[in-house]
Amino acid sequence: MQGRLNIVPFVSVDNMMKLVLAIGIERFLTGLAAAIEEDFRRWELFDKTPRIASHSAEGVIELMPTSDGTTYGFKYVNGHPRNTRQGRQTVTAFGVLADVGNGYPMLLTEMTILTALRTAATSALAAKYLAPKDARVMAVIGNGAQAEFQAMAFRTMLGIDRLRLHDIDRAATEKCIRNLAGLGFDITACGSAAEAVQGAQIVTTVTADKQNATILTDNLVGRGIHINGVGGDCPGKTELHPDILLRSDIFVEYSPQTRIEGEIQQLAPDHPVTELWRVIAGHAEGRRGADQITLFDSVGFAIEDFSALRYVRERIAGTGFFEELDLLADPDEPRDLFGMLLRAQG
Amino acid sequence: MQGRLNIVPFVSVDNMMKLVLAIGIERFLTGLAAAIEEDFRRWELFDKTPRIASHSAEGVIELMPTSDGTTYGFKYVNGHPRNTRQGRQTVTAFGVLADVGNGYPMLLTEMTILTALRTAATSALAAKYLAPKDARVMAVIGNGAQAEFQAMAFRTMLGIDRLRLHDIDRAATEKCIRNLAGLGFDITACGSAAEAVQGAQIVTTVTADKQNATILTDNLVGRGIHINGVGGDCPGKTELHPDILLRSDIFVEYSPQTRIEGEIQQLAPDHPVTELWRVIAGHAEGRRGADQITLFDSVGFAIEDFSALRYVRERIAGTGFFEELDLLADPDEPRDLFGMLLRAQG
Repeated sequence: MQGRLNIVPFVSVDNMMKLVLAIGIERFLTGLAAAIEEDFRRWELFDKTPRIASHSAEGVIELMPTSDGTTYGFKYVNGHPRNTRQGRQTVTAFGVLADVGNGYPMLLTEMTILTALRTAATSALAAKYLAPKDARVMAVIGNGAQAEFQAMAFRTMLGIDRLRLHDIDRAATEKCIRNLAGLGFDITACGSAAEAVQGAQIVTTVTADKQNATILTDNLVGRGIHINGVGGDCPGKTELHPDILLRSDIFVEYSPQTRIEGEIQQLAPDHPVTELWRVIAGHAEGRRGADQITLFDSVGFAIEDFSALRYVRERIAGTGFFEELDLLADPDEPRDLFGMLLRAQG
Repeated sequence: MQGRLNIVPFVSVDNMMKLVLAIGIERFLTGLAAAIEEDFRRWELFDKTPRIASHSAEGVIELMPTSDGTTYGFKYVNGHPRNTRQGRQTVTAFGVLADVGNGYPMLLTEMTILTALRTAATSALAAKYLAPKDARVMAVIGNGAQAEFQAMAFRTMLGIDRLRLHDIDRAATEKCIRNLAGLGFDITACGSAAEAVQGAQIVTTVTADKQNATILTDNLVGRGIHINGVGGDCPGKTELHPDILLRSDIFVEYSPQTRIEGEIQQLAPDHPVTELWRVIAGHAEGRRGADQITLFDSVGFAIEDFSALRYVRERIAGTGFFEELDLLADPDEPRDLFGMLLRAQG
């Protein structure tokens, strides 16, 4: 990846899929989680800003930048809940990694698939610190584009091999079951959220509607469980009844952002929450006992994308899973941009 | 540019040069200026935020987003003054245009060359409203990567055909003279800024050092001239002595940004300035008379990049000057991202 200054390595959707499959989905998820864990340990080094959002009636377009002082990364991501009606993804994304020292981009990559992977890796990483010991059963409520990635991450990192799936659209659940067939899960399709949570030590909520919905009511949440709340991720979009929040110990990525976008937008602005990085770095306790209800109120944070970008950059080195993009003007003499243009006349 | 949902048209550096040359540099600049003028007329429609900057000891990396409610655009741009020492550009950039309705990117393009063009087009557009009538002579102080673009824009839009060039590095001036030879300019190389401004009705300052420098002192600025101040564009980087500012009527792009980044960072925060769009839309006066000193304190604003992006998107339609980038995951069934990944196993 050294060489001509005009070139930026580019990982297309096709190459991302090939890279993930060449490494193996589970190994990729484990590697991603390790990169995220490493970056969460050095959390204080990072330049943190809430994402920059451009809202419209149809959805949102966001830029999520961060930097560790040496490397800069940002992700472009949209969220348009009605997109599926036109055959489009609700969420698409791409990202860029750049060198802080000279400002030159050093990776451009698709991040639609990568975001699903990093979200799942972050969820499983949080659960490693927060879920009850020896959990085997996970309910997954919302069986859309993220569901299988969550299942794979929880199996490889926590040994979860029994799934209880529920979606208001039965076809989504069937798609999940089809995709996960032969991958070693014991799967139960459930007709309601109430049925899905029965016997589950972990409950993952990952629905997509942009509205304040109540996917889980308080009576469904028993003692000792871990809730992995993934789908409440923008203002006006929540999944959990506030009573559940009041009974839980709540863990978040970056509290200034989560208070705006997460489940805790339903709570008082000073309601106590713990940032996950503090648990990982040993500054705060994760799960304390068997009766505690823990909630990871996940909205997705720029550092997770940064970790994913640097992991991909490390992994494509020496492979053929990228193209060379002629993205940066590189005149023979740096000040001679105009001369370069004239000489292109050929 | 319709078609498969995974594809985003990409304009490489090579294709940008071919596109500009196929259209013609002067026609391209005129077209760009017209797009900017049109967008400045509907200024109030745009979502305006100051750029999001990540500063380091070596320079800055910025994201500049904006939206007109229908289309969203952003530019990634760095500024690293010491880059030329390693053969790199001080400023490189790329940009993206997206559909607000579904959040899908619809153009990715190099913007290093495009930024030089849009900066020059904006300068000449401002001068159309602010420079003295019948100006023929322009001093250009700072003969780096931007200089020839400025010269070309001022000739095609204002009829400037006599240039007085100065740079502390004589080699830069010689490069300019070489590049502009045969393009119809009468050029004088000047040993000092004082010499360069003699007889000039327009003075363009476009130096690159990241420091508060005094390229022009007060005694050099005679009555009636228009100053096109391009090089003072970030905190701590200015080119003009504050006394010049106090004698000038000052025009800016977006005052909240210019007060931080422009020449006027040297003035009181309530010093009166006029936003250029108000002149273009007929809400404020431009040049009032022959004795007035006008200053366009230009720092570059996201709307100019938006205009440039949409102009490029319009102009590549039906040409071969773009590639198709496989940037967006597009499963047959939108929720079946995981299935798409599995099926790539082939």
